[in-house]
Amino acid sequence: MSSGLRRHVPILDWGRRYDRNDLAGDGLAALIVTIMLIPQSLAYALLAGLPAEAGIYASILPIVLYAIFGTSRSLAVGPVAVVSLLTASAVGEVAAQGTAGYAAAALTLAALSGVILLLLGALRLGFLANFLSHPVIAGFITASGILIAASQLRHLLGIEAGGHTLIEMVTGLLVNIGATNLPTLAIGLAATAFLFWVRRGMTPALRGAGLSATAAATLTKAGPVLAVVVTTALVWKLSLDAAGVAIVGDVPRGLPPFTVPTASPDLIRQLLVPAILISVIGFVESISVAQTLAARRRERIDPDQELIGLGAANLGAAFTGGYPVTGGFSRSVVNDDAGARTPAAGVYTAIGLAFAAAFLTPLIQYLPQATLAATIIVAVLGLVDLSILRRTWTYAKADFVAVAVTILATLGAGVEIGVATGIGVSLVLHLVKTAKPHVAVVGLVPGTQHFRNVDRHAVATDPGLLTIRVDESLYFVNARFLETLIQDRVSESGSISNVVLMCPAVNEIDFSALESLEAVNRRLRDLGIGFHLSEVKGPVMDRLARTHFLDELNGRVFLSQYDAWTELVRPAPRSAAE
Amino acid sequence: MSSGLRRHVPILDWGRRYDRNDLAGDGLAALIVTIMLIPQSLAYALLAGLPAEAGIYASILPIVLYAIFGTSRSLAVGPVAVVSLLTASAVGEVAAQGTAGYAAAALTLAALSGVILLLLGALRLGFLANFLSHPVIAGFITASGILIAASQLRHLLGIEAGGHTLIEMVTGLLVNIGATNLPTLAIGLAATAFLFWVRRGMTPALRGAGLSATAAATLTKAGPVLAVVVTTALVWKLSLDAAGVAIVGDVPRGLPPFTVPTASPDLIRQLLVPAILISVIGFVESISVAQTLAARRRERIDPDQELIGLGAANLGAAFTGGYPVTGGFSRSVVNDDAGARTPAAGVYTAIGLAFAAAFLTPLIQYLPQATLAATIIVAVLGLVDLSILRRTWTYAKADFVAVAVTILATLGAGVEIGVATGIGVSLVLHLVKTAKPHVAVVGLVPGTQHFRNVDRHAVATDPGLLTIRVDESLYFVNARFLETLIQDRVSESGSISNVVLMCPAVNEIDFSALESLEAVNRRLRDLGIGFHLSEVKGPVMDRLARTHFLDELNGRVFLSQYDAWTELVRPAPRSAAE
Repeated sequence: MSSGLRRHVPILDWGRRYDRNDLAGDGLAALIVTIMLIPQSLAYALLAGLPAEAGIYASILPIVLYAIFGTSRSLAVGPVAVVSLLTASAVGEVAAQGTAGYAAAALTLAALSGVILLLLGALRLGFLANFLSHPVIAGFITASGILIAASQLRHLLGIEAGGHTLIEMVTGLLVNIGATNLPTLAIGLAATAFLFWVRRGMTPALRGAGLSATAAATLTKAGPVLAVVVTTALVWKLSLDAAGVAIVGDVPRGLPPFTVPTASPDLIRQLLVPAILISVIGFVESISVAQTLAARRRERIDPDQELIGLGAANLGAAFTGGYPVTGGFSRSVVNDDAGARTPAAGVYTAIGLAFAAAFLTPLIQYLPQATLAATIIVAVLGLVDLSILRRTWTYAKADFVAVAVTILATLGAGVEIGVATGIGVSLVLHLVKTAKPHVAVVGLVPGTQHFRNVDRHAVATDPGLLTIRVDESLYFVNARFLETLIQDRVSESGSISNVVLMCPAVNEIDFSALESLEAVNRRLRDLGIGFHLSEVKGPVMDRLARTHFLDELNGRVFLSQYDAWTELVRPAPRSAAE
Repeated sequence: MSSGLRRHVPILDWGRRYDRNDLAGDGLAALIVTIMLIPQSLAYALLAGLPAEAGIYASILPIVLYAIFGTSRSLAVGPVAVVSLLTASAVGEVAAQGTAGYAAAALTLAALSGVILLLLGALRLGFLANFLSHPVIAGFITASGILIAASQLRHLLGIEAGGHTLIEMVTGLLVNIGATNLPTLAIGLAATAFLFWVRRGMTPALRGAGLSATAAATLTKAGPVLAVVVTTALVWKLSLDAAGVAIVGDVPRGLPPFTVPTASPDLIRQLLVPAILISVIGFVESISVAQTLAARRRERIDPDQELIGLGAANLGAAFTGGYPVTGGFSRSVVNDDAGARTPAAGVYTAIGLAFAAAFLTPLIQYLPQATLAATIIVAVLGLVDLSILRRTWTYAKADFVAVAVTILATLGAGVEIGVATGIGVSLVLHLVKTAKPHVAVVGLVPGTQHFRNVDRHAVATDPGLLTIRVDESLYFVNARFLETLIQDRVSESGSISNVVLMCPAVNEIDFSALESLEAVNRRLRDLGIGFHLSEVKGPVMDRLARTHFLDELNGRVFLSQYDAWTELVRPAPRSAAE
């Protein structure tokens, strides 16, 4: 078996060495994750505007395909909050919730996302995801958490409300708040309070009651299932659905259906940009989780192979009644903590969920939507982290601006515009920073061969020699800056007879910068002033050697600035006489 | 008088010292430029789709306002080819050529452009123009030259044809070529041939005939006027207009009118993006000319004050029946060569043109449009420089791609999409280059304190120490790259106990990169591996000191890599015994 094949189908690698210990670890992890995933999957489907079962379907085949093609040992793939919100936003543009067209568009979105991820992986373009900076991701996830929580309030109140922005959502809630259904509100608030307690207080309470740490943590994972069971039983017993409590309703019983996503050019055109955003955001979220988990065990994650794994998972979702998926943080951490040893744990989870889909769905008919909304709210409030504003403010204002703009744009104009604005602003800010690079006029530190900034150190200079050190690569955005700087310095001082550009931090000189240097050289030559370079890096020099620049240079290229100094500064008369 | 006022109104500076020599030099330059500008201005107005007189009007008040506010001594402001083409493209979207709405929209475009330039100048944002790289400008100007020449062929043939892209133009010509008007074609071809000869052969011929170099060069400048006079006389004498030769027609006689640009929100919305493009492209063209001319005399050009000067000029054009203007290359060079000493030369040129507008316009009624088209074609073919493709190909493939994409997009999709695509592609290519920075594992050059790439030099390394030198600033686009690299290296080798990141070329660490370094630090700490930095620059260190990173660092920050080496590499047993 070739190592290339093993690289692209990692299951061939770990599958051959699978043993009984792996089975035990993976089996226990799968059981815990399955119990946790059932309510979570139903809830995220609701958030995406889809029937509850779509969440379960989206967790079965995708998890198996990721196990075959992905490189992380413990990543758990399925519906996640942010991608569900993005799905609702994208699909809501092309069809109305509850229609067959809506579910069909979600399949197309998953298929597009799968194809995009596979393409990026095959072309090894995973690094493009890095155009999303950490501040933009952090701001986007925080704002999404707030939007998601706001969007679920209507289910807690049992009223109708919509909107893609925070203002629209709040307005919608306020308009209809008079129609609040009290039984729904009671269930919703109780479930929310209980789930917050599960998150914060249940493990300590169980340990206080004498359970072992493992048992307490495991039971805590079943907390959401308990909320589901209790509220479902309550609605069923008291016929609260007749009192206006919205329930999940009739869920088809059976394995995931085989579905074929629509390939109409019109639909593809409308969903392409959202699919790109979903792919990139999903990939970034997934790879962060995968790398964190892999680092614990000194394992390697191959980002381009991860794209293949996630692409296969999304295609799987598209063909089995699901919607876009990615590697989720909470489920992956639970999987890892519970002792998953190989991707087989994912396969066992899929089997557990398939069992649930085949046999347990009739039981959730009376599950109140308010309980699922509570599950979502408690989960996503964990995503909201406004401390990023303070931390970036302290560190660098440009990063703060990127966070703040992303949060405001996401809350104010919706997820798609929010993330696009964030990416645009962070790129422009970066370019603006390099547009006026740090530049120092330098002189010789007496008694050494070192050159330092004349404004900061007591250094020797010579009136005939201007030495400028540029602390940035020279490229089109800053090329003219340097051109203007040299021209200004030379026109200010009549005594300069040589200019040296010191390049130890110049990692690149692009064609625009080359033309600027040529212009500087030409102008200085016309004025009878020498133009020299020093400490040019190897790759930069190689490239310059391919042009006429070095032939036309009205001066020399010095290996070290000290060489330039000894050559260009005339010794004082006394020294010369000695 | 304050120096601040003098800085923003440069005329207050040079105007006080104006003397008789200045007057003589400026006066002669103005005469030559005026003669050259009359046909050029009429022609560019035709290219912009406007009545011929708009070109003269756009050369009068703008040139005076630039003389007051601009910093270049010899820049000549007025209609130029590329901006005229952009005007035709932008205004053609909102009104039909020949209508009153068309001329009104051109005024609004000039006003918007003026306001944008003034704003950029007031906010000192002139550096934003640097986002246009040299390859993009070169590609755009070359493609524009081809488009302009193609757009004028219909005037040479005397047929109807339109289009914004090369394919549309060529198709339009082929469809109607059967309707070619032979007298028009004869005049057009003769004028084109004559003007090419003026450009290349007239000066040598006149010198051969015994004229002095100056006289020959000055007479050559009058070549286009000669073509205008001869062809106009011909059309008038032979009544060729009755034979289907298109003429300029009735041109109103008088000084530029006072016009007020329309400020309808709808029109502004439609013209805003084109106005931004025109402002930026016009500014870039103008500042390049101004800097080249200023360098000859060791003068300073202040880019932000240039924005003010050009902004005032465009507002002037908007209020006097003109259209967007900028500093033109050929007219400025002629002005400079002819001996202009101060911006007063521009004022005298304006007086000359005002005289022409007031008294000479009846004479050009029979001027054939084919002659003006010939003037344009000969002028713009000088802009076409396909050698940029070869030069960038040799130097750097990324720059080649930027040129090629800009040329193809401009020819294939028009000027606005062309330049926008060029800017986008060049920025993305730059970011992609920095996404996978040059990184070297380094070791000690024996007998020195220098560290070099282990792959290129025979250097000493230690199995317990991994030293990585990054030759790029660390920011979000490449942060994850480094994270993955270190993780891979550490997971490949079991012997590493310390990792040093050597940062002499790291000019910035942004928040994303900081978080990546924190993740690396956390992961290495969990594995019991030390993480150190060396040769961190002062400003980078200042910023890190504001965070908890240095407190949490599982290692040290060394001033030099040699310090790190002596500290972290355990001496070999023998050396230790000595």
